[in-house]
Amino acid sequence: MGSVGGMSRTGARLTELGIELPEVFPPAGNYLGCVRSGSLLHVGGHGPVNGSEIVTGKVGDTVDLAGARRAARMTGLSLLATMRLELGDLDRVVQIVKVFGMVNVAPGFNQMPAVIDGCSDLLVDVFGDAGRHTRSAVGMAELPFDIAVEIELIAEVN
Amino acid sequence: MGSVGGMSRTGARLTELGIELPEVFPPAGNYLGCVRSGSLLHVGGHGPVNGSEIVTGKVGDTVDLAGARRAARMTGLSLLATMRLELGDLDRVVQIVKVFGMVNVAPGFNQMPAVIDGCSDLLVDVFGDAGRHTRSAVGMAELPFDIAVEIELIAEVN
Amino acid sequence: MGSVGGMSRTGARLTELGIELPEVFPPAGNYLGCVRSGSLLHVGGHGPVNGSEIVTGKVGDTVDLAGARRAARMTGLSLLATMRLELGDLDRVVQIVKVFGMVNVAPGFNQMPAVIDGCSDLLVDVFGDAGRHTRSAVGMAELPFDIAVEIELIAEVN
Repeated sequence: MGSVGGMSRTGARLTELGIELPEVFPPAGNYLGCVRSGSLLHVGGHGPVNGSEIVTGKVGDTVDLAGARRAARMTGLSLLATMRLELGDLDRVVQIVKVFGMVNVAPGFNQMPAVIDGCSDLLVDVFGDAGRHTRSAVGMAELPFDIAVEIELIAEVN
Repeated sequence: MGSVGGMSRTGARLTELGIELPEVFPPAGNYLGCVRSGSLLHVGGHGPVNGSEIVTGKVGDTVDLAGARRAARMTGLSLLATMRLELGDLDRVVQIVKVFGMVNVAPGFNQMPAVIDGCSDLLVDVFGDAGRHTRSAVGMAELPFDIAVEIELIAEVN
Repeated sequence: MGSVGGMSRTGARLTELGIELPEVFPPAGNYLGCVRSGSLLHVGGHGPVNGSEIVTGKVGDTVDLAGARRAARMTGLSLLATMRLELGDLDRVVQIVKVFGMVNVAPGFNQMPAVIDGCSDLLVDVFGDAGRHTRSAVGMAELPFDIAVEIELIAEVN
């Protein structure tokens, strides 16, 4: 579905956008990157990691809004890498259903929606309408290893 | 189901309770108010907004328990407004499955369950047993635009 | 499935591990311990409670990593008790799909994955591969009644 002659439509779209997905990030504990149940794929918390680069720090203090938004986009790319490994082809994504975006906030920073848009914009850029999802974007007291952003999602897949 | 002669049972119940749902609150970023996948409707984070009224502030500091509970009820009404727009008729709700209630807490405030009961009580009042759900009610470091409460939910619908 | 001659495989495994599940913890508000919809069982937030014992306090301050990890395991046992009451037999668990682990953190504590492994390890010990799940493990500003850990999960059941 969506693939023509073995060509991945989503893969072509990534190329068009100049996006190369990062290596799949290994889980930081005794858990899996994602689990499928029926038509729903639950993808656990991912962070802004790309190879050796990792964005850490409190948003609103050592990380500014632009940096946090970029971190959210990086996190989205990491989510896509995990999903592609699981599904073989991202064309199997029918709909991104739900995003839960968590921002490692300094006291008083509350522009979480603008931060998490960095991930949401990416999902819509890559999947089009199938990338439109519902969402919460909230401020956490702490995130693992002080990463600036952590995002999990639920996708419908075939 | 639940409607008699085109009459919405849930609509009648809202009238009986003297409830008028607020306008649907527009998402604060690049996302949708809710997304349906199969029989599950995921409704993203909503806040205590009713037209021009919005409840902001830290619960346990500038917002007290009673005010926070009222904000949770307002948030529940906003969730219902979004669900009604999506479903056409709230009678299509088979079961409220899961509520995730987030409270914008001042340090030391930990009566989140009593706050989120403001939403849970509303759901049971409106839907009866179909409104009984499982839940978490937790304290966040920050919420978008400093809203006092944010709630998301999952419903089974037909 | 998994039961031989009326014997619960998971029950036998619990005995083998020397585990006795705690009493089911009553919800702290107007909600249910879990709700099933289709093949998915949503289990709401549980805490580290075993009869009269409850683990409270900020992790990284009055609760150390080892104590928090033990609290996460206690929370996992409480989740299992609720699931067994709902399902009759834990053999009906096909897969633990998703765990959302919340740690009541003191500022600067960010080893949430190591804490929540206390629950994840338990689930894998009890269910084997069926216990392997995806996950987020994050730091909350406050948890109800100052409990040290709160965990919710989604399981596929038959």
